[in-house]
Amino acid sequence: MGKRFAESKVRVRYGETDQMGVVYHGNYPQFLEIGRVEWLRQFGVSYRDMEESGVMLPVISLTISYKKSARYDDLLTIKTTLKKIPSIKIEFDYEIFAENGDVIAEANTVLAFMDMKKNRPVKCPDYILEKLEALPY
Amino acid sequence: MGKRFAESKVRVRYGETDQMGVVYHGNYPQFLEIGRVEWLRQFGVSYRDMEESGVMLPVISLTISYKKSARYDDLLTIKTTLKKIPSIKIEFDYEIFAENGDVIAEANTVLAFMDMKKNRPVKCPDYILEKLEALPY
Amino acid sequence: MGKRFAESKVRVRYGETDQMGVVYHGNYPQFLEIGRVEWLRQFGVSYRDMEESGVMLPVISLTISYKKSARYDDLLTIKTTLKKIPSIKIEFDYEIFAENGDVIAEANTVLAFMDMKKNRPVKCPDYILEKLEALPY
Amino acid sequence: MGKRFAESKVRVRYGETDQMGVVYHGNYPQFLEIGRVEWLRQFGVSYRDMEESGVMLPVISLTISYKKSARYDDLLTIKTTLKKIPSIKIEFDYEIFAENGDVIAEANTVLAFMDMKKNRPVKCPDYILEKLEALPY
Repeated sequence: MGKRFAESKVRVRYGETDQMGVVYHGNYPQFLEIGRVEWLRQFGVSYRDMEESGVMLPVISLTISYKKSARYDDLLTIKTTLKKIPSIKIEFDYEIFAENGDVIAEANTVLAFMDMKKNRPVKCPDYILEKLEALPY
Repeated sequence: MGKRFAESKVRVRYGETDQMGVVYHGNYPQFLEIGRVEWLRQFGVSYRDMEESGVMLPVISLTISYKKSARYDDLLTIKTTLKKIPSIKIEFDYEIFAENGDVIAEANTVLAFMDMKKNRPVKCPDYILEKLEALPY
Repeated sequence: MGKRFAESKVRVRYGETDQMGVVYHGNYPQFLEIGRVEWLRQFGVSYRDMEESGVMLPVISLTISYKKSARYDDLLTIKTTLKKIPSIKIEFDYEIFAENGDVIAEANTVLAFMDMKKNRPVKCPDYILEKLEALPY
Repeated sequence: MGKRFAESKVRVRYGETDQMGVVYHGNYPQFLEIGRVEWLRQFGVSYRDMEESGVMLPVISLTISYKKSARYDDLLTIKTTLKKIPSIKIEFDYEIFAENGDVIAEANTVLAFMDMKKNRPVKCPDYILEKLEALPY
Protein backbone atom coordinates (compact mmCIF):
# COMPACT_ATOMS: atom_id res chain seq x y z
CA MET A 1 0.00 0.00 0.00
CA GLY A 2 1.55 3.29 -1.07
CA LYS A 3 0.67 6.83 -0.53
CA ARG A 4 0.98 9.46 -3.18
CA PHE A 5 3.18 12.37 -2.21
CA ALA A 6 4.98 15.35 -3.63
CA GLU A 7 8.13 17.18 -2.65
CA SER A 8 8.54 20.95 -2.81
CA LYS A 9 11.52 23.11 -2.08
CA VAL A 10 11.42 26.39 -0.22
CA ARG A 11 14.35 28.61 0.66
CA VAL A 12 14.05 30.32 4.04
CA ARG A 13 13.72 34.10 3.77
CA TYR A 14 15.37 36.54 6.15
CA GLY A 15 12.03 37.93 7.23
CA GLU A 16 10.94 34.44 8.23
CA THR A 17 13.48 34.25 11.01
CA ASP A 18 12.90 35.62 14.48
CA GLN A 19 15.27 36.84 17.16
CA MET A 20 16.04 33.28 18.26
CA GLY A 21 17.93 33.16 14.97
CA VAL A 22 15.69 30.44 13.53
CA VAL A 23 12.55 30.28 11.42
CA TYR A 24 9.62 31.70 13.41
CA HIS A 25 7.33 28.81 14.25
CA GLY A 26 4.32 30.73 12.98
CA ASN A 27 5.68 30.70 9.43
CA TYR A 28 5.43 26.95 8.98
CA PRO A 29 1.76 26.98 7.93
CA GLN A 30 2.88 28.88 4.80
CA PHE A 31 5.36 26.11 4.02
CA LEU A 32 2.64 23.48 4.36
CA GLU A 33 0.47 25.45 1.98
CA ILE A 34 3.25 25.52 -0.60
CA GLY A 35 3.52 21.77 -0.16
CA ARG A 36 -0.11 20.95 -0.80
CA VAL A 37 -0.49 23.41 -3.67
CA GLU A 38 2.48 21.80 -5.43
CA TRP A 39 1.04 18.36 -4.59
CA LEU A 40 -2.15 19.38 -6.40
CA ARG A 41 -0.24 20.90 -9.31
CA GLN A 42 1.40 17.56 -10.18
CA PHE A 43 -2.09 16.27 -11.03
CA GLY A 44 -2.58 19.20 -13.32
CA VAL A 45 -4.85 20.86 -10.78
CA SER A 46 -4.32 24.52 -10.00
CA TYR A 47 -5.62 25.62 -6.63
CA ARG A 48 -6.08 29.04 -8.14
CA ASP A 49 -8.30 27.68 -10.89
CA MET A 50 -10.27 25.66 -8.39
CA GLU A 51 -10.96 28.77 -6.36
CA GLU A 52 -11.89 30.71 -9.48
CA SER A 53 -14.38 27.95 -10.30
CA GLY A 54 -16.08 28.66 -6.98
CA VAL A 55 -14.61 26.05 -4.65
CA MET A 56 -12.29 27.09 -1.87
CA LEU A 57 -10.40 25.02 0.66
CA PRO A 58 -10.18 26.61 4.10
CA VAL A 59 -8.01 24.90 6.68
CA ILE A 60 -10.10 23.51 9.51
CA SER A 61 -7.37 21.94 11.59
CA LEU A 62 -3.62 22.25 11.79
CA THR A 63 -1.09 20.34 13.86
CA ILE A 64 2.64 20.92 13.79
CA SER A 65 5.32 19.15 15.76
CA TYR A 66 8.61 21.06 15.72
CA LYS A 67 11.65 18.77 15.81
CA LYS A 68 14.64 20.90 14.88
CA SER A 69 15.26 24.51 13.98
CA ALA A 70 15.41 25.75 10.42
CA ARG A 71 17.69 28.67 9.65
CA TYR A 72 17.92 31.56 7.26
CA ASP A 73 18.82 30.57 3.70
CA ASP A 74 18.21 26.85 4.39
CA LEU A 75 16.69 25.03 1.45
CA LEU A 76 13.86 23.04 2.99
CA THR A 77 12.07 20.11 1.41
CA ILE A 78 8.37 19.77 2.16
CA LYS A 79 7.05 16.26 1.62
CA THR A 80 3.27 16.35 1.33
CA THR A 81 1.27 13.12 1.48
CA LEU A 82 -2.44 12.74 0.86
CA LYS A 83 -3.77 10.76 3.80
CA LYS A 84 -6.86 9.31 2.19
CA ILE A 85 -9.22 9.79 -0.71
CA PRO A 86 -10.91 13.14 -0.09
CA SER A 87 -14.64 13.51 0.54
CA ILE A 88 -15.92 16.84 1.82
CA LYS A 89 -12.57 17.10 3.56
CA ILE A 90 -9.02 16.53 2.39
CA GLU A 91 -6.26 15.58 4.79
CA PHE A 92 -2.52 15.83 4.34
CA ASP A 93 0.51 14.72 6.32
CA TYR A 94 3.72 16.67 5.93
CA GLU A 95 7.35 16.24 6.74
CA ILE A 96 9.78 19.12 6.42
CA PHE A 97 13.42 18.17 5.88
CA ALA A 98 16.69 20.06 6.13
CA GLU A 99 19.28 19.64 3.41
CA ASN A 100 21.13 17.05 5.50
CA GLY A 101 17.97 14.97 5.71
CA ASP A 102 17.08 15.90 9.30
CA VAL A 103 13.38 16.14 10.00
CA ILE A 104 12.62 19.74 10.91
CA ALA A 105 8.90 19.30 11.50
CA GLU A 106 5.97 16.96 11.05
CA ALA A 107 2.52 18.28 10.43
CA ASN A 108 -1.05 17.49 9.48
CA THR A 109 -3.82 19.63 8.05
CA VAL A 110 -7.47 18.99 7.32
CA LEU A 111 -9.17 21.25 4.81
CA ALA A 112 -12.83 21.45 3.79
CA PHE A 113 -14.15 21.91 0.27
CA MET A 114 -16.48 24.89 0.36
CA ASP A 115 -18.88 26.20 -2.25
CA MET A 116 -18.03 29.90 -2.21
CA LYS A 117 -21.43 31.09 -3.45
CA LYS A 118 -23.51 28.97 -1.11
CA ASN A 119 -20.93 29.23 1.67
CA ARG A 120 -21.37 25.58 2.56
CA PRO A 121 -19.36 22.36 2.38
CA VAL A 122 -19.32 20.40 -0.84
CA LYS A 123 -17.75 17.17 -1.99
CA CYS A 124 -14.33 17.16 -3.58
CA PRO A 125 -14.84 18.12 -7.25
CA ASP A 126 -15.10 15.07 -9.55
CA TYR A 127 -12.28 16.23 -11.81
CA ILE A 128 -9.95 15.97 -8.86
CA LEU A 129 -11.32 12.65 -7.59
CA GLU A 130 -10.83 11.11 -11.02
CA LYS A 131 -7.19 12.04 -10.93
CA LEU A 132 -6.73 10.53 -7.50
CA GLU A 133 -8.49 7.28 -8.39
CA ALA A 134 -5.39 5.87 -9.98
CA LEU A 135 -3.40 6.35 -6.79
CA PRO A 136 -2.26 3.14 -5.14
CA TYR A 137 -4.15 2.69 -1.84
CA MET B 1 -1.15 76.26 9.99
CA GLY B 2 -1.66 72.90 11.62
CA LYS B 3 -1.97 69.44 10.34
CA ARG B 4 -4.39 66.94 11.73
CA PHE B 5 -2.80 63.80 13.04
CA ALA B 6 -3.51 60.73 15.13
CA GLU B 7 -1.37 58.57 17.36
CA SER B 8 -1.68 54.80 17.60
CA LYS B 9 0.13 52.33 19.77
CA VAL B 10 1.41 48.97 18.63
CA ARG B 11 3.30 46.46 20.71
CA VAL B 12 6.00 44.58 18.76
CA ARG B 13 5.26 40.86 18.40
CA TYR B 14 7.88 38.16 18.64
CA GLY B 15 7.18 37.01 15.10
CA GLU B 16 7.89 40.52 13.86
CA THR B 17 11.55 40.31 14.83
CA ASP B 18 14.21 38.79 12.63
CA GLN B 19 17.55 37.24 13.42
CA MET B 20 19.21 40.65 13.79
CA GLY B 21 17.18 40.78 17.00
CA VAL B 22 15.13 43.76 15.84
CA VAL B 23 11.85 44.33 14.03
CA TYR B 24 12.15 43.08 10.46
CA HIS B 25 12.11 46.13 8.20
CA GLY B 26 9.42 44.57 6.03
CA ASN B 27 6.91 44.66 8.87
CA TYR B 28 6.76 48.44 9.07
CA PRO B 29 4.14 48.81 6.31
CA GLN B 30 1.71 47.01 8.64
CA PHE B 31 2.41 49.57 11.34
CA LEU B 32 1.72 52.41 8.92
CA GLU B 33 -1.57 50.80 7.99
CA ILE B 34 -2.59 50.60 11.63
CA GLY B 35 -1.72 54.28 11.89
CA ARG B 36 -3.86 55.48 9.01
CA VAL B 37 -6.81 53.24 9.89
CA GLU B 38 -6.86 54.68 13.40
CA TRP B 39 -6.45 58.16 11.94
CA LEU B 40 -9.61 57.54 9.91
CA ARG B 41 -11.46 56.03 12.85
CA GLN B 42 -11.17 59.25 14.88
CA PHE B 43 -13.38 60.93 12.25
CA GLY B 44 -15.90 58.17 12.71
CA VAL B 45 -14.87 56.59 9.44
CA SER B 46 -14.26 52.87 9.34
CA TYR B 47 -11.96 51.68 6.58
CA ARG B 48 -13.82 48.40 6.68
CA ASP B 49 -17.16 50.12 6.07
CA MET B 50 -15.65 52.17 3.26
CA GLU B 51 -14.46 49.02 1.56
CA GLU B 52 -17.83 47.36 2.07
CA SER B 53 -19.44 50.37 0.40
CA GLY B 54 -17.35 49.65 -2.69
CA VAL B 55 -14.37 51.98 -2.32
CA MET B 56 -10.94 50.57 -1.62
CA LEU B 57 -7.64 52.30 -0.98
CA PRO B 58 -4.66 50.51 -2.48
CA VAL B 59 -1.23 51.87 -1.65
CA ILE B 60 0.47 53.28 -4.73
CA SER B 61 3.69 54.46 -3.19
CA LEU B 62 5.54 53.79 0.01
CA THR B 63 8.72 55.33 1.41
CA ILE B 64 10.30 54.41 4.70
CA SER B 65 13.43 55.80 6.26
CA TYR B 66 14.73 53.62 9.08
CA LYS B 67 16.41 55.61 11.85
CA LYS B 68 16.76 53.26 14.81
CA SER B 69 15.90 49.67 15.56
CA ALA B 70 12.71 48.63 17.28
CA ARG B 71 12.80 45.55 19.51
CA TYR B 72 10.53 42.78 20.64
CA ASP B 73 7.86 43.92 23.13
CA ASP B 74 8.55 47.60 22.50
CA LEU B 75 5.43 49.73 22.61
CA LEU B 76 5.68 51.89 19.52
CA THR B 77 3.74 55.05 18.81
CA ILE B 78 2.75 55.71 15.22
CA LYS B 79 1.98 59.33 14.50
CA THR B 80 0.01 59.62 11.28
CA THR B 81 -0.47 63.00 9.62
CA LEU B 82 -2.68 63.78 6.64
CA LYS B 83 -0.50 65.68 4.22
CA LYS B 84 -3.19 67.54 2.29
CA ILE B 85 -6.90 67.42 1.52
CA PRO B 86 -7.42 64.21 -0.45
CA SER B 87 -8.61 64.15 -4.05
CA ILE B 88 -8.36 60.87 -5.96
CA LYS B 89 -5.32 60.22 -3.81
CA ILE B 90 -4.68 60.53 -0.11
CA GLU B 91 -1.22 61.06 1.29
CA PHE B 92 0.08 60.50 4.80
CA ASP B 93 3.31 61.19 6.63
CA TYR B 94 4.25 58.99 9.53
CA GLU B 95 6.66 59.04 12.41
CA ILE B 96 7.21 55.96 14.53
CA PHE B 97 8.49 56.61 18.05
CA ALA B 98 10.02 54.40 20.72
CA GLU B 99 8.84 54.74 24.31
CA ASN B 100 11.77 57.01 25.12
CA GLY B 101 10.73 59.37 22.34
CA ASP B 102 13.41 58.33 19.84
CA VAL B 103 12.32 58.40 16.22
CA ILE B 104 12.42 54.82 14.93
CA ALA B 105 11.29 55.57 11.39
CA GLU B 106 9.78 58.19 9.14
CA ALA B 107 7.52 57.23 6.30
CA ASN B 108 5.13 58.40 3.63
CA THR B 109 2.39 56.63 1.72
CA VAL B 110 0.15 57.64 -1.14
CA LEU B 111 -3.06 55.70 -1.61
CA ALA B 112 -5.65 55.88 -4.38
CA PHE B 113 -9.41 55.78 -3.98
CA MET B 114 -10.68 53.01 -6.24
CA ASP B 115 -14.21 52.07 -7.21
CA MET B 116 -14.13 48.32 -6.69
CA LYS B 117 -16.89 47.51 -9.18
CA LYS B 118 -15.57 49.67 -11.99
CA ASN B 119 -11.97 49.02 -11.00
CA ARG B 120 -11.04 52.65 -11.59
CA PRO B 121 -9.96 55.66 -9.58
CA VAL B 122 -12.61 57.79 -7.94
CA LYS B 123 -12.61 60.91 -5.85
CA CYS B 124 -12.45 60.73 -2.09
CA PRO B 125 -16.02 60.04 -0.89
CA ASP B 126 -17.87 63.21 0.12
CA TYR B 127 -18.72 61.95 3.60
CA ILE B 128 -15.00 61.83 4.30
CA LEU B 129 -14.20 65.17 2.70
CA GLU B 130 -16.86 66.85 4.80
CA LYS B 131 -15.21 65.60 7.93
CA LEU B 132 -11.81 66.86 6.83
CA GLU B 133 -13.08 70.31 5.87
CA ALA B 134 -12.93 71.53 9.42
CA LEU B 135 -9.23 70.68 9.66
CA PRO B 136 -6.94 73.67 10.08
CA TYR B 137 -4.86 74.11 6.91
CA MET C 1 -10.66 23.22 40.58
CA GLY C 2 -9.91 26.30 38.54
CA LYS C 3 -7.43 27.11 35.91
CA ARG C 4 -5.66 30.40 35.75
CA PHE C 5 -6.19 32.25 32.51
CA ALA C 6 -5.75 35.63 30.88
CA GLU C 7 -7.61 37.46 28.15
CA SER C 8 -5.94 39.61 25.51
CA LYS C 9 -7.42 41.68 22.75
CA VAL C 10 -6.09 41.89 19.23
CA ARG C 11 -7.54 43.86 16.34
CA VAL C 12 -7.23 42.13 12.96
CA ARG C 13 -4.91 43.96 10.56
CA TYR C 14 -5.57 44.31 6.87
CA GLY C 15 -2.40 42.45 6.00
CA GLU C 16 -3.59 39.50 8.07
CA THR C 17 -6.47 38.80 5.72
CA ASP C 18 -6.13 36.69 2.59
CA GLN C 19 -8.09 36.61 -0.62
CA MET C 20 -10.86 34.53 0.97
CA GLY C 21 -11.64 37.80 2.76
CA VAL C 22 -10.88 36.36 6.19
CA VAL C 23 -7.87 36.11 8.47
CA TYR C 24 -5.26 33.87 6.89
CA HIS C 25 -5.10 30.69 8.95
CA GLY C 26 -1.34 30.94 9.19
CA ASN C 27 -1.57 34.13 11.22
CA TYR C 28 -3.22 32.52 14.22
CA PRO C 29 0.06 31.37 15.82
CA GLN C 30 0.92 35.06 16.28
CA PHE C 31 -2.36 35.60 18.14
CA LEU C 32 -1.60 32.67 20.45
CA GLU C 33 1.80 34.15 21.18
CA ILE C 34 0.22 37.46 22.13
CA GLY C 35 -2.09 35.51 24.42
CA ARG C 36 0.62 33.66 26.33
CA VAL C 37 2.91 36.68 26.61
CA GLU C 38 0.10 38.69 28.17
CA TRP C 39 -0.75 35.71 30.40
CA LEU C 40 2.85 35.81 31.68
CA ARG C 41 2.82 39.58 32.06
CA GLN C 42 -0.06 39.46 34.59
CA PHE C 43 2.34 37.61 36.92
CA GLY C 44 4.83 40.37 36.49
CA VAL C 45 6.92 38.19 34.21
CA SER C 46 8.20 39.65 30.97
CA TYR C 47 8.99 37.12 28.28
CA ARG C 48 11.55 39.58 26.96
CA ASP C 49 13.33 39.73 30.32
CA MET C 50 13.26 35.95 30.58
CA GLU C 51 14.94 35.64 27.21
CA GLU C 52 17.48 38.29 28.13
CA SER C 53 18.27 36.25 31.25
CA GLY C 54 19.19 33.35 28.98
CA VAL C 55 16.05 31.23 28.91
CA MET C 56 14.00 30.96 25.75
CA LEU C 57 10.74 29.20 25.06
CA PRO C 58 10.54 27.64 21.60
CA VAL C 59 7.22 26.13 20.56
CA ILE C 60 7.49 22.37 20.19
CA SER C 61 3.93 21.60 19.22
CA LEU C 62 0.99 23.56 17.95
CA THR C 63 -2.58 22.51 17.29
CA ILE C 64 -5.30 24.80 15.99
CA SER C 65 -8.90 23.97 15.28
CA TYR C 66 -10.57 26.62 13.13
CA LYS C 67 -14.27 27.04 13.94
CA LYS C 68 -15.37 30.30 12.30
CA SER C 69 -13.75 32.97 10.19
CA ALA C 70 -12.34 36.15 11.62
CA ARG C 71 -12.47 39.30 9.52
CA TYR C 72 -10.54 42.48 8.99
CA ASP C 73 -10.90 44.98 11.82
CA ASP C 74 -12.53 42.41 14.14
CA LEU C 75 -11.52 42.82 17.75
CA LEU C 76 -10.66 39.29 18.85
CA THR C 77 -10.31 38.06 22.41
CA ILE C 78 -7.68 35.44 23.09
CA LYS C 79 -8.28 33.46 26.25
CA THR C 80 -5.09 31.71 27.32
CA THR C 81 -5.18 29.03 29.99
CA LEU C 82 -2.19 27.35 31.60
CA LYS C 83 -2.90 23.63 31.40
CA LYS C 84 -0.73 22.45 34.28
CA ILE C 85 2.18 23.50 36.45
CA PRO C 86 5.14 23.77 34.08
CA SER C 87 8.22 21.56 34.33
CA ILE C 88 10.68 21.58 31.45
CA LYS C 89 7.64 22.22 29.28
CA ILE C 90 4.76 24.62 29.55
CA GLU C 91 1.41 23.93 27.96
CA PHE C 92 -1.41 26.32 27.15
CA ASP C 93 -4.94 25.98 25.84
CA TYR C 94 -6.44 28.87 23.93
CA GLU C 95 -9.83 30.00 22.80
CA ILE C 96 -10.22 32.87 20.38
CA PHE C 97 -13.54 34.70 20.50
CA ALA C 98 -15.28 37.14 18.17
CA GLU C 99 -16.92 40.23 19.63
CA ASN C 100 -20.30 38.49 19.62
CA GLY C 101 -18.87 35.68 21.73
CA ASP C 102 -18.58 33.13 18.93
CA VAL C 103 -15.62 30.79 19.21
CA ILE C 104 -13.33 31.48 16.26
CA ALA C 105 -10.67 28.91 17.09
CA GLU C 106 -9.41 26.58 19.78
CA ALA C 107 -5.73 25.84 20.11
CA ASN C 108 -3.01 24.26 22.18
CA THR C 109 0.72 24.84 22.31
CA VAL C 110 3.53 23.13 24.16
CA LEU C 111 6.74 25.09 24.67
CA ALA C 112 10.07 24.02 26.11
CA PHE C 113 12.28 26.01 28.46
CA MET C 114 15.72 26.15 26.89
CA ASP C 115 19.01 27.38 28.28
CA MET C 116 20.24 29.55 25.44
CA LYS C 117 23.95 29.22 26.25
CA LYS C 118 23.97 25.47 26.72
CA ASN C 119 21.28 25.00 24.06
CA ARG C 120 19.52 22.37 26.15
CA PRO C 121 16.23 22.01 28.02
CA VAL C 122 15.99 23.38 31.54
CA LYS C 123 13.30 23.48 34.17
CA CYS C 124 10.89 26.38 34.40
CA PRO C 125 12.74 29.15 36.28
CA ASP C 126 11.94 29.17 40.01
CA TYR C 127 10.82 32.80 40.00
CA ILE C 128 8.03 31.81 37.63
CA LEU C 129 7.11 28.61 39.49
CA GLU C 130 6.76 30.56 42.73
CA LYS C 131 4.26 32.85 41.10
CA LEU C 132 2.23 29.95 39.78
CA GLU C 133 2.19 28.08 43.10
CA ALA C 134 -0.68 30.13 44.36
CA LEU C 135 -2.84 29.16 41.39
CA PRO C 136 -5.84 27.01 42.29
CA TYR C 137 -5.34 23.52 40.83
CA MET D 1 27.80 51.86 -19.44
CA GLY D 2 25.99 48.87 -18.08
CA LYS D 3 24.71 47.91 -14.75
CA ARG D 4 25.05 44.49 -13.32
CA PHE D 5 21.75 42.88 -12.41
CA ALA D 6 20.21 39.58 -11.46
CA GLU D 7 16.77 38.10 -11.95
CA SER D 8 15.00 35.98 -9.36
CA LYS D 9 11.67 34.22 -9.51
CA VAL D 10 9.16 34.09 -6.72
CA ARG D 11 5.77 32.43 -6.77
CA VAL D 12 3.08 34.31 -4.84
CA ARG D 13 1.84 32.41 -1.79
CA TYR D 14 -1.77 32.35 -0.68
CA GLY D 15 -0.92 33.92 2.63
CA GLU D 16 0.66 36.84 0.79
CA THR D 17 -2.68 37.97 -0.62
CA ASP D 18 -5.08 40.20 1.25
CA GLN D 19 -8.82 40.64 0.99
CA MET D 20 -8.49 42.86 -2.08
CA GLY D 21 -7.55 39.58 -3.78
CA VAL D 22 -4.05 40.76 -4.60
CA VAL D 23 -0.62 40.61 -3.00
CA TYR D 24 -0.61 42.69 0.18
CA HIS D 25 1.58 45.72 -0.47
CA GLY D 26 3.50 45.11 2.74
CA ASN D 27 4.87 41.82 1.42
CA TYR D 28 6.93 43.42 -1.34
CA PRO D 29 9.95 44.16 0.89
CA GLN D 30 10.40 40.40 1.24
CA PHE D 31 10.49 40.07 -2.55
CA LEU D 32 13.15 42.76 -2.79
CA GLU D 33 15.22 40.93 -0.21
CA ILE D 34 15.03 37.74 -2.23
CA GLY D 35 16.19 39.75 -5.21
CA ARG D 36 19.29 41.25 -3.61
CA VAL D 37 20.28 38.00 -1.87
CA GLU D 38 20.19 36.18 -5.20
CA TRP D 39 22.05 39.07 -6.81
CA LEU D 40 24.81 38.57 -4.22
CA ARG D 41 24.78 34.80 -4.63
CA GLN D 42 25.70 35.07 -8.34
CA PHE D 43 29.04 36.53 -7.22
CA GLY D 44 29.54 33.57 -4.96
CA VAL D 45 28.70 35.69 -1.94
CA SER D 46 26.28 34.30 0.61
CA TYR D 47 24.51 36.89 2.70
CA ARG D 48 24.28 34.29 5.44
CA ASP D 49 28.03 33.79 5.44
CA MET D 50 28.59 37.52 5.47
CA GLU D 51 26.41 37.87 8.53
CA GLU D 52 28.14 34.95 10.22
CA SER D 53 31.45 36.74 9.57
CA GLY D 54 30.13 39.68 11.60
CA VAL D 55 28.83 42.07 8.96
CA MET D 56 25.15 42.70 8.63
CA LEU D 57 23.20 44.80 6.19
CA PRO D 58 20.22 46.56 7.69
CA VAL D 59 17.91 48.43 5.33
CA ILE D 60 18.06 52.18 5.95
CA SER D 61 15.65 53.33 3.29
CA LEU D 62 12.99 51.72 1.18
CA THR D 63 10.87 53.12 -1.63
CA ILE D 64 8.27 51.19 -3.56
CA SER D 65 6.06 52.39 -6.37
CA TYR D 66 3.15 50.03 -7.01
CA LYS D 67 2.13 49.90 -10.67
CA LYS D 68 -0.13 46.87 -11.07
CA SER D 69 -1.50 44.19 -8.81
CA ALA D 70 0.12 40.80 -8.41
CA ARG D 71 -2.11 37.83 -7.73
CA TYR D 72 -2.00 34.50 -5.97
CA ASP D 73 0.12 31.88 -7.73
CA ASP D 74 1.67 34.46 -10.08
CA LEU D 75 5.29 33.74 -10.89
CA LEU D 76 6.98 37.09 -10.43
CA THR D 77 10.40 38.10 -11.71
CA ILE D 78 12.45 40.41 -9.54
CA LYS D 79 15.16 42.25 -11.43
CA THR D 80 17.74 43.62 -9.02
CA THR D 81 20.31 46.15 -10.18
CA LEU D 82 23.26 47.46 -8.21
CA LYS D 83 23.11 51.23 -8.51
CA LYS D 84 26.76 52.04 -7.87
CA ILE D 85 29.91 50.61 -6.36
CA PRO D 86 29.13 50.20 -2.66
CA SER D 87 30.98 52.08 0.07
CA ILE D 88 29.55 52.02 3.59
CA LYS D 89 26.18 51.79 1.87
CA ILE D 90 24.89 49.64 -0.95
CA GLU D 91 22.00 50.72 -3.13
CA PHE D 92 19.77 48.66 -5.37
CA ASP D 93 17.03 49.39 -7.88
CA TYR D 94 14.38 46.78 -8.48
CA GLU D 95 11.72 46.04 -11.01
CA ILE D 96 9.13 43.36 -10.39
CA PHE D 97 7.55 41.85 -13.49
CA ALA D 98 4.47 39.71 -14.08
CA GLU D 99 4.72 36.72 -16.40
CA ASN D 100 3.32 38.77 -19.27
CA GLY D 101 6.10 41.31 -18.83
CA ASP D 102 4.01 43.98 -17.13
CA VAL D 103 5.83 46.00 -14.50
CA ILE D 104 4.20 45.28 -11.15
CA ALA D 105 6.40 47.52 -9.05
CA GLU D 106 9.57 49.58 -9.04
CA ALA D 107 11.61 49.95 -5.92
CA ASN D 108 14.84 51.13 -4.37
CA THR D 109 16.61 50.22 -1.17
CA VAL D 110 19.69 51.54 0.56
CA LEU D 111 21.42 49.26 3.04
CA ALA D 112 24.31 49.95 5.38
CA PHE D 113 27.22 47.64 6.13
CA MET D 114 27.39 47.26 9.90
CA ASP D 115 30.01 45.65 12.09
CA MET D 116 27.85 43.53 14.38
CA LYS D 117 30.28 43.47 17.29
CA LYS D 118 31.08 47.17 17.29
CA ASN D 119 27.54 48.05 16.20
CA ARG D 120 28.83 50.70 13.82
CA PRO D 121 29.01 51.26 10.07
CA VAL D 122 31.88 49.72 8.13
CA LYS D 123 32.99 49.72 4.54
CA CYS D 124 31.80 47.05 2.14
CA PRO D 125 34.04 44.01 2.74
CA ASP D 126 36.96 43.82 0.29
CA TYR D 127 36.11 40.33 -0.90
CA ILE D 128 32.84 41.72 -2.21
CA LEU D 129 34.35 44.87 -3.70
CA GLU D 130 36.87 42.77 -5.62
CA LYS D 131 34.09 40.82 -7.21
CA LEU D 132 32.27 43.98 -8.20
CA GLU D 133 35.35 45.63 -9.68
CA ALA D 134 34.95 43.78 -12.92
CA LEU D 135 31.44 45.15 -13.39
CA PRO D 136 31.02 47.49 -16.34
CA TYR D 137 30.38 51.01 -15.01
